[in-house]
Amino acid sequence: MRYTDGKVHDITIAYIGGGSRGWAWNLMTDLAKEESISGTVKLYDIDYDAARDNEIIGNSLSMRQDVKGKWLYKACETLEESLKGADFVIISILPGTFDEMESDVHAPEKYGIYQSVGDTVGPGGIVRALRTIPMFVDIANAIKEHCPNAWVINYTNPMTLCVRTLYEVFPQIKAFGCCHEVFGTQKLLSRALQDVEGINDVPREEIKINVLGINHFTWIDNARYKDIDLMHVYKQFVNKYYETGFISDANDNWMNNSFVSAERVKFDLFLRYGIIAAAGDRHLAEFVPGYWYLKDPETVREWMFGLTTVNWRKEDLKRRLERSKRLKIGEEKFELKETGEEGVRQIKALLGLGDLVTNVNIPNYGQIEGIPYGAVVETNALFSGNKLKPILSGKLPDNVNSLVLRQVYNQETTLKAALKKDYNLAFSAFVNDPLVAISLKDAKKLFNEMLENTKKYLDGWELKV
Amino acid sequence: MRYTDGKVHDITIAYIGGGSRGWAWNLMTDLAKEESISGTVKLYDIDYDAARDNEIIGNSLSMRQDVKGKWLYKACETLEESLKGADFVIISILPGTFDEMESDVHAPEKYGIYQSVGDTVGPGGIVRALRTIPMFVDIANAIKEHCPNAWVINYTNPMTLCVRTLYEVFPQIKAFGCCHEVFGTQKLLSRALQDVEGINDVPREEIKINVLGINHFTWIDNARYKDIDLMHVYKQFVNKYYETGFISDANDNWMNNSFVSAERVKFDLFLRYGIIAAAGDRHLAEFVPGYWYLKDPETVREWMFGLTTVNWRKEDLKRRLERSKRLKIGEEKFELKETGEEGVRQIKALLGLGDLVTNVNIPNYGQIEGIPYGAVVETNALFSGNKLKPILSGKLPDNVNSLVLRQVYNQETTLKAALKKDYNLAFSAFVNDPLVAISLKDAKKLFNEMLENTKKYLDGWELKV
Amino acid sequence: MRYTDGKVHDITIAYIGGGSRGWAWNLMTDLAKEESISGTVKLYDIDYDAARDNEIIGNSLSMRQDVKGKWLYKACETLEESLKGADFVIISILPGTFDEMESDVHAPEKYGIYQSVGDTVGPGGIVRALRTIPMFVDIANAIKEHCPNAWVINYTNPMTLCVRTLYEVFPQIKAFGCCHEVFGTQKLLSRALQDVEGINDVPREEIKINVLGINHFTWIDNARYKDIDLMHVYKQFVNKYYETGFISDANDNWMNNSFVSAERVKFDLFLRYGIIAAAGDRHLAEFVPGYWYLKDPETVREWMFGLTTVNWRKEDLKRRLERSKRLKIGEEKFELKETGEEGVRQIKALLGLGDLVTNVNIPNYGQIEGIPYGAVVETNALFSGNKLKPILSGKLPDNVNSLVLRQVYNQETTLKAALKKDYNLAFSAFVNDPLVAISLKDAKKLFNEMLENTKKYLDGWELKV
Amino acid sequence: MRYTDGKVHDITIAYIGGGSRGWAWNLMTDLAKEESISGTVKLYDIDYDAARDNEIIGNSLSMRQDVKGKWLYKACETLEESLKGADFVIISILPGTFDEMESDVHAPEKYGIYQSVGDTVGPGGIVRALRTIPMFVDIANAIKEHCPNAWVINYTNPMTLCVRTLYEVFPQIKAFGCCHEVFGTQKLLSRALQDVEGINDVPREEIKINVLGINHFTWIDNARYKDIDLMHVYKQFVNKYYETGFISDANDNWMNNSFVSAERVKFDLFLRYGIIAAAGDRHLAEFVPGYWYLKDPETVREWMFGLTTVNWRKEDLKRRLERSKRLKIGEEKFELKETGEEGVRQIKALLGLGDLVTNVNIPNYGQIEGIPYGAVVETNALFSGNKLKPILSGKLPDNVNSLVLRQVYNQETTLKAALKKDYNLAFSAFVNDPLVAISLKDAKKLFNEMLENTKKYLDGWELKV
Ligand SMILES: [Mg+2]
Ligand SMILES: [Mg+2]
Ligand SMILES: [Mg+2]
Ligand SMILES: [Mg+2]
Repeated sequence: MRYTDGKVHDITIAYIGGGSRGWAWNLMTDLAKEESISGTVKLYDIDYDAARDNEIIGNSLSMRQDVKGKWLYKACETLEESLKGADFVIISILPGTFDEMESDVHAPEKYGIYQSVGDTVGPGGIVRALRTIPMFVDIANAIKEHCPNAWVINYTNPMTLCVRTLYEVFPQIKAFGCCHEVFGTQKLLSRALQDVEGINDVPREEIKINVLGINHFTWIDNARYKDIDLMHVYKQFVNKYYETGFISDANDNWMNNSFVSAERVKFDLFLRYGIIAAAGDRHLAEFVPGYWYLKDPETVREWMFGLTTVNWRKEDLKRRLERSKRLKIGEEKFELKETGEEGVRQIKALLGLGDLVTNVNIPNYGQIEGIPYGAVVETNALFSGNKLKPILSGKLPDNVNSLVLRQVYNQETTLKAALKKDYNLAFSAFVNDPLVAISLKDAKKLFNEMLENTKKYLDGWELKV
Repeated sequence: MRYTDGKVHDITIAYIGGGSRGWAWNLMTDLAKEESISGTVKLYDIDYDAARDNEIIGNSLSMRQDVKGKWLYKACETLEESLKGADFVIISILPGTFDEMESDVHAPEKYGIYQSVGDTVGPGGIVRALRTIPMFVDIANAIKEHCPNAWVINYTNPMTLCVRTLYEVFPQIKAFGCCHEVFGTQKLLSRALQDVEGINDVPREEIKINVLGINHFTWIDNARYKDIDLMHVYKQFVNKYYETGFISDANDNWMNNSFVSAERVKFDLFLRYGIIAAAGDRHLAEFVPGYWYLKDPETVREWMFGLTTVNWRKEDLKRRLERSKRLKIGEEKFELKETGEEGVRQIKALLGLGDLVTNVNIPNYGQIEGIPYGAVVETNALFSGNKLKPILSGKLPDNVNSLVLRQVYNQETTLKAALKKDYNLAFSAFVNDPLVAISLKDAKKLFNEMLENTKKYLDGWELKV
Repeated sequence: MRYTDGKVHDITIAYIGGGSRGWAWNLMTDLAKEESISGTVKLYDIDYDAARDNEIIGNSLSMRQDVKGKWLYKACETLEESLKGADFVIISILPGTFDEMESDVHAPEKYGIYQSVGDTVGPGGIVRALRTIPMFVDIANAIKEHCPNAWVINYTNPMTLCVRTLYEVFPQIKAFGCCHEVFGTQKLLSRALQDVEGINDVPREEIKINVLGINHFTWIDNARYKDIDLMHVYKQFVNKYYETGFISDANDNWMNNSFVSAERVKFDLFLRYGIIAAAGDRHLAEFVPGYWYLKDPETVREWMFGLTTVNWRKEDLKRRLERSKRLKIGEEKFELKETGEEGVRQIKALLGLGDLVTNVNIPNYGQIEGIPYGAVVETNALFSGNKLKPILSGKLPDNVNSLVLRQVYNQETTLKAALKKDYNLAFSAFVNDPLVAISLKDAKKLFNEMLENTKKYLDGWELKV
Repeated sequence: MRYTDGKVHDITIAYIGGGSRGWAWNLMTDLAKEESISGTVKLYDIDYDAARDNEIIGNSLSMRQDVKGKWLYKACETLEESLKGADFVIISILPGTFDEMESDVHAPEKYGIYQSVGDTVGPGGIVRALRTIPMFVDIANAIKEHCPNAWVINYTNPMTLCVRTLYEVFPQIKAFGCCHEVFGTQKLLSRALQDVEGINDVPREEIKINVLGINHFTWIDNARYKDIDLMHVYKQFVNKYYETGFISDANDNWMNNSFVSAERVKFDLFLRYGIIAAAGDRHLAEFVPGYWYLKDPETVREWMFGLTTVNWRKEDLKRRLERSKRLKIGEEKFELKETGEEGVRQIKALLGLGDLVTNVNIPNYGQIEGIPYGAVVETNALFSGNKLKPILSGKLPDNVNSLVLRQVYNQETTLKAALKKDYNLAFSAFVNDPLVAISLKDAKKLFNEMLENTKKYLDGWELKV
């Protein structure tokens, strides 16, 4: 890297994954709009052609006159090749295919277990983790060997266990995980500010929050805009919309988009616990007992959120791949939309180009009280000159912490099970998941079936079938 | 107190409760058999006549020639009177009556929630706690005022919250809680030794164990008899009897006695977690999700344990009261049976008459890792010369700790709710209980009904009915 | 307070102290230069005339056309009056007079104990603390009563014990302590950058550091300017100047100014411990055994720093009071120099006008590992929208932590001694101070003499003379 | 091992060291008197002839009719041979020779540093540690390889660092360190009981104490005999004898025996700190600043204890070796005196032959609050059936903890220095030692000289001479 006039040149970014296009294009967009940094992006995906496509799309973007950030994109045939010399590593893989995910999400339905996402916790999240952890063991070992000083940004789910695995394998790694769910909650607070106080269009960055919890089950116990205490504002907002739900966009509501919700789960949690759950309702619902919000499709409808099917994901991927073709051959022009992601701002801050405070997922070194040291948690942190330092964020109320710890311990158990390939340990996590509210016998049948469906990624396991 | 020739005279014991007779008679029995200590037992019960009956029974026992331990029994009209000058305080009350307990245990059945005991956790345990905590606030305050240096032994359930309340109100209190469930598991290990190794009649005191957890959900992670590792012995024992259950006494098995079990729950937990759950199956089943062992009466039968009805308790009490009458007028002779309790041995050790190591319930000062400081936990402790020092007992495996912590946090929340008379807090504990595996709506209805049934003990609460 | 167009009006600041003018004028200066905030400054000093003088000086400053920040200054006759309605409280008092300080600093010289400052640790610092703590008990109680939600900024020494006392008396207080010693070290790093790398005039704010320790004995274990690791730069700098010392300003060197040094103590500590001590040498020397750098005036000269005499302070005060007179009657014009203080920037950040990361003194909530919770420590913290959140700063190397802990425990002991007015406790801190390297007998004589000299501030103590 | 009728046969004990005879003979004595255990003692010493002598002496003892405990003694030529198959390992070596110890103890006298023992802390203790740690690295590795499940008992000084090294190298080791200094304090309490209360001849085992601290700087904060609070008794005792000292035995007082003292140091510490220092005065004096009790020989005389010279040790060794010769050829009969050691009782308890509570040195797992985890501390522990569980012992008062922590951190630094062979680290520990109250320049000269004198044991170090 070279520094001149407040700019940094010759940065090397390794991008692992990207075959499903979405996140890779977001990165290209944000890099294209930023003039203070430049260098090379090395693309690696288990599907080399996908990486090649992105190489072509990225390079043609770099050649455009309206693009300020000039990067060279280069597809790599091996993980090692992409990592060598990297200053930053971005991990955004799909662990397995949507066929395995179909089993993760939908196999449990036979037993009355419904999942709105199925990639974080719940039976789907656990089995996905068992499949993903060995991949992250390999990635961590490769980083340790080829670029131990690189900063590593993970976008892959299950976020907590991906980051946790990186640190388990290579404790000195400089890794963190990023997710935009908290940003969405900041935007909701901005909407509440408009609705309750008539203050319009406050950007989410000006909503100052204290964040604590784990990814997709993160909480805000203090929120402020200038002199306004947003906890009070939110309370009024919740009371107003608890029954009807709050629908922020007429064209894009929870009934016809399985990704959005009317925030009723979030409101219900606020009324019970007094602090703000800071993730989408689809995620939140999966962290608490299944009989609360996910008992059956009817209950889900009452709480006004959607169950994202894997079929929808498959169709969506198809659309992206078609778009990829068009972009590649220049039939479609790459649009530089607002991505809402912070990766590039984080990179700049780590390069010393201005400090940044934002929420990230890293091991608990004491930033949260009441959660075991080493567990991966989500809080604010300060990015400043090659340092990432978490901000002390206090502790959750006991009744919320109890819900969080159940997942934290389950995640630790899942990690150990994956590393030891220990069926019993894994099953003990499975039956302790709040969505697995079925008999021990049924749980065993379901677990066996789900493992069977993903067994090609469970090398070395003794499956009990 | 006076010490002469290895004996201690003029000890004052305050006995709070005892109206239901059982525990009071156990104490009388153990005192009668011990010659090294003597003094006065001051009896207090909200039913003064009950205390008077015990006074008469106790004093006539003291006058018997075959009785070595001579004590003066004295009924007191007020709590204060009984506490003044006490060196030891024993608390063994029934919080409310069996009518409230009937609601605790059986009201949830309408919603498909079955409880085998209903006095510790579960909907019954939580509501019982809300009723009991104010009583223990009063007792703690009275001890603080009248006998702050006394040793306080609690036998009342919910054990954890009773002891926790005493320390919350009066942090300098010298209190601990005793329960014999762990002893029962030591006896089971002795039976396993006989069954597997052919070594007969090993007394439970020679089964050396490491104990950790919370009352009625305590665990043994290390057990030894001389050079024999009992963890291995127990494993063989479990494998042998997992399917059939182990029935220790032909005349008193789980089918016709709702207090005993065939240990299948304990065996199932061992197979999953690898360490020994050290309480009766009826208790253990209540600490884990209701759909595991308590889904319905049929499931309970499969796991071979009993649901103790409150009706049975009412009948049993009647029998004890009749016996009390006979004892009082001399129609029946008090028998000095083996009680299996340790209270008197603990008192002796605290008086400096020999050290004792046994399991007790006290706040966590670090004796268990992974459970918050201050939460009441059960581990071994050393009783020695006016000191009670817990023994460092290590930590539970993550998958077990998760189950334990869920209860620990629920108990802390219940305590705060009871002290603040906060309906919302209490409800948040209620819906987090593993037995309350029902919809949020039903949970609210049930909770309201149960509070209504015990409302005469909920002074100052705003009930939502 | 009112917010309009990014400005905040009607702020109330209570300024406690200021009789010695210096800090009060700094605040006036910084307020005068800042246009985004305005309101009232209520001045309280035990010398009411001093407060009146400042009122006059402040108000005439506010009337000047070149002054952007318009504030109303108002002297108050009582502490209560000044605190009522305060949004911010600034504490900058002289505890006692320079007569007591003369004893603090110079009485120990008879026993061969030399102090370069004498207001933080050492015999002088301890006795000053015993005198100051009761004053801070009063201030904390008054804040608790009159403005419990105000932010409280302390500048008084001994910093650690002043802040610690505020939290001991009123744990919910929103207080922090500020000191510019770390800024000085950032400036030294900037000079090193110039000297070693030829990069000139880097402002201290761009020197990114990780700060940890206690006030006046703070350490930097990571320093960076853009991509340059300043730990390496500093190492070369130290090697170059270790023997000769580094004299930054020809006109103002350590030989003719008892406030500056040639940094040799700092360099020596770096060579031994490998991390950077971040305070002036005069302060640092007092935290380590007296026989290292303060054995006698000759040793001090060898290490090239100065012993600040109280006589000098008395003369200096005289000069300031004369200047005060001239300013008051308009004979001299108030100059708006760069103060180098951050108080006003912190106030703005707490008001929500932009985030700020800087070093402050607050209780340890986990921001430093290896120092007891609750002890007041100095690390970076994030100021953001009515919140002050410490940044996790890691742990000191064992050999440095040992030196720090000796002071931390001594400070805790001094606090308890002052609160309980316990001579024995206080003496146990005194003899554990690294500067008190004399026999127990002499230590007692010296301690008694020093207490005697400050006894008018030791109400309720039983002195042993 | 075989268990029959409450006895254990075929035990294998490896005894490492013993060339200086004293401790080996104590073990032989205690084994000879105990009939419940038997087996083989494998003797290893770097001086094989010494081991052979002990073999002959031990076996002829075993053949005596009056000896109940029959053991076979067997000298081994290698460490490995002695460890193979061991159930217990006892380590009691002299690290280096008395020539190195002569430098440890007496070289510092040139700089006015006097040491009463010189084997634990102080310049002598640190240099001895640097020499000893590599030996314990070898022993730990050999145990890990040859008998990883053996219980390891260490008697070698510096106790803390020897045990700490064993755990550093082999964290799963089952090691603990034993020292009788606390027993001596129990005996002193028994004497106080006689002196103050007229109660004679109470055996030390009946003096119930709470013990906490580090070896040779251990403290008792609670002591009781039956209903008598010995803290009060001791207070009266101290007040009575503070000035004159307490001389327990007319023939063996501090003036003509450099091993005993008149307890004045202990009394002085009690008056200042309010708790009982539980080691001999010669040890205690070395843990606090040298200018307190060890300023010069005259000061030592005032405090009425002795400086043990290495010359005396050399003469004493000569006497033991002569006695060894006589014992070997039968010219002298081995006397079975009371040794006062507990090793054999500990071995019995670990074999399951009765529980034992006594003080030991093991890593801090939480048994002491306020001292870092992992540091080796001394508290009571429960020995019971192949388990050693520390007893939670609370925390030291801040002013005492400060003195203890200074040593704890110094020991950790010394350990790291020895493992890394890092001169700078070692020197930073050296100058932080409370006895090294000299200038940095002199400290360096002394340190270099002392390292030079022991350099044959400092393989791989770069000495700065
Ligand atoms: Mg996400
Ligand atoms: Mg019980
Ligand atoms: Mg300062
Ligand atoms: Mg010793």
